[in-house]
Amino acid sequence: MGERALAIDIGGTKIAAAVVDADGALRGAVRRPVPVVSGPSGAEQVFAAVWDCAYESLLAAGVGIGELAGVGCGCAGPMRWPAGEVSPLNIPAWRDFPLRERLRELVDDAPVLVHNDGIALAAGEHWAGVARGVHNLLAVTVSTGVGGGLILAGQLLHGGWGNAGHIGHLTVAADGPPCPCGGQGCLEVMAAGPHTVRRALAAGWVPPAGQPADGRVLAACAAAGNQTARRELARSGSAVGAGMAAATNLLDLDAAVVAGGFAQSGPIFWDAMRAGFDRHAGLAFSRRLRILRSADPDRVPLWGAAAFVLVPDRYGWSG
Amino acid sequence: MGERALAIDIGGTKIAAAVVDADGALRGAVRRPVPVVSGPSGAEQVFAAVWDCAYESLLAAGVGIGELAGVGCGCAGPMRWPAGEVSPLNIPAWRDFPLRERLRELVDDAPVLVHNDGIALAAGEHWAGVARGVHNLLAVTVSTGVGGGLILAGQLLHGGWGNAGHIGHLTVAADGPPCPCGGQGCLEVMAAGPHTVRRALAAGWVPPAGQPADGRVLAACAAAGNQTARRELARSGSAVGAGMAAATNLLDLDAAVVAGGFAQSGPIFWDAMRAGFDRHAGLAFSRRLRILRSADPDRVPLWGAAAFVLVPDRYGWSG
Repeated sequence: MGERALAIDIGGTKIAAAVVDADGALRGAVRRPVPVVSGPSGAEQVFAAVWDCAYESLLAAGVGIGELAGVGCGCAGPMRWPAGEVSPLNIPAWRDFPLRERLRELVDDAPVLVHNDGIALAAGEHWAGVARGVHNLLAVTVSTGVGGGLILAGQLLHGGWGNAGHIGHLTVAADGPPCPCGGQGCLEVMAAGPHTVRRALAAGWVPPAGQPADGRVLAACAAAGNQTARRELARSGSAVGAGMAAATNLLDLDAAVVAGGFAQSGPIFWDAMRAGFDRHAGLAFSRRLRILRSADPDRVPLWGAAAFVLVPDRYGWSG
Repeated sequence: MGERALAIDIGGTKIAAAVVDADGALRGAVRRPVPVVSGPSGAEQVFAAVWDCAYESLLAAGVGIGELAGVGCGCAGPMRWPAGEVSPLNIPAWRDFPLRERLRELVDDAPVLVHNDGIALAAGEHWAGVARGVHNLLAVTVSTGVGGGLILAGQLLHGGWGNAGHIGHLTVAADGPPCPCGGQGCLEVMAAGPHTVRRALAAGWVPPAGQPADGRVLAACAAAGNQTARRELARSGSAVGAGMAAATNLLDLDAAVVAGGFAQSGPIFWDAMRAGFDRHAGLAFSRRLRILRSADPDRVPLWGAAAFVLVPDRYGWSG
């Protein structure tokens, strides 16, 4: 073996990069914020920040471009896949930005694979995280959005257009509220942090003086005993549990791994999620689902991005 | 090529068998009802009827057991898979009946593969039905129950315990009515024929004199203009559409194929299904889903059962 990949993770607010060895070891890990930009040069400024981060990582690891098996990248969606033309919701400067092509130019046409961050999460948990060896796996992340990915029969699932595992838009309430995606009653609109905060505010919750109305503060208030905060946080957890049950009723999964700040805010969310799951998972094959807690939010997305390149039979695709 | 399989389809009320050639041609097709039995010998009487049907098919096709590549069987669930120990809901005489083992004894240990009928449906539509060549496919059947199967990345999906594609227990209404499976708001309880008839009766629908209160009569009354029948049939279709949207939002499918007498009862169901799908499929990758109408209810389950044996790389498994 001895292969290594450059792994890049681009979220809505931060960029991370590292060199990842075939045994999962990370070297030269670097993080920085996505720059706030505007104007016609904004797209290039964001890309420059990505490449600076990646290059700094190579320098810190002491690895040359010629020594890479390739570059793997997880990026916030939506995107065109496998083309790797990305339009992350929270990076307005990038619309149909040819991320994969631009990276290829800089790495001498070494293989570059770009995929949705939810799919990188699933690959990372399965390759080197808490879900190693699981044959049929759902990865879910609940924070500002609800995303995820699927490993089925031991293989990363891509979907026809690269959106498989996008559990945020699983319908969990056919008569539920409209979702910005154009659907109705999607898990994301029932459970994501900002939607939950919005409902709590509408129900009379007020964040403590000087603190923002966000998911973290809502969870803290719930933990401190605020009943409205507690109820809305539990509703979010319950919806995530129902969505996990629906997915395993459909797919006969072995385990689910749950990540994301909102999902990991404490027992109020987690207990409601388990109860929601139990309420909707009636069949024996569904009830056996193991629910795992994601353990390493900084490394998992980079493991996943690296796995695209380092373990192509299981996690890769032909670009 | 020139291989051939014995294909068997066991539903709740009928048994079918045929010899299926590698090009999908059926020879010696035979159908008969599941015998109504009771007492301790009931399980054997049902099995005798299955084997009589299968053997008659071999005779009619002029094919000897030694000329078979193997035996494929789709059977109503639930079952233990891949053991092929079946407990079809509508065949009470069979509880943990070792169908696969019993068939193996009769075919000189030729390969015998037994799987859920919903999974046979998906394999049959994909191998030789209206969904040939679809890379990511959901098959749905709506009649006395709601079942289905999945082809993902060109491969039949089995699931950890052999229940993948079981869309009848996809949660479509998290606060919906309890489902006999132990869950709540499952597609089956929202959409299957008997549940829909029950709701129509509760809402005041009365079948015409001398006719049974079943899905077929309900659909006929809806077509003839009965408003209660029409509303309940449309609600069923709408729930199926929502479930299809949820599945494609999660799995990024290319097409869905819809089978079953209730789903094919006419435009009231079908139009409501499409509208329900449109309401819940907001994302571009979901909206592209092609919705196909199953065309050959007598042959598709036998094609699927044969495909388990004849095309093992795509549809088979190691028993």
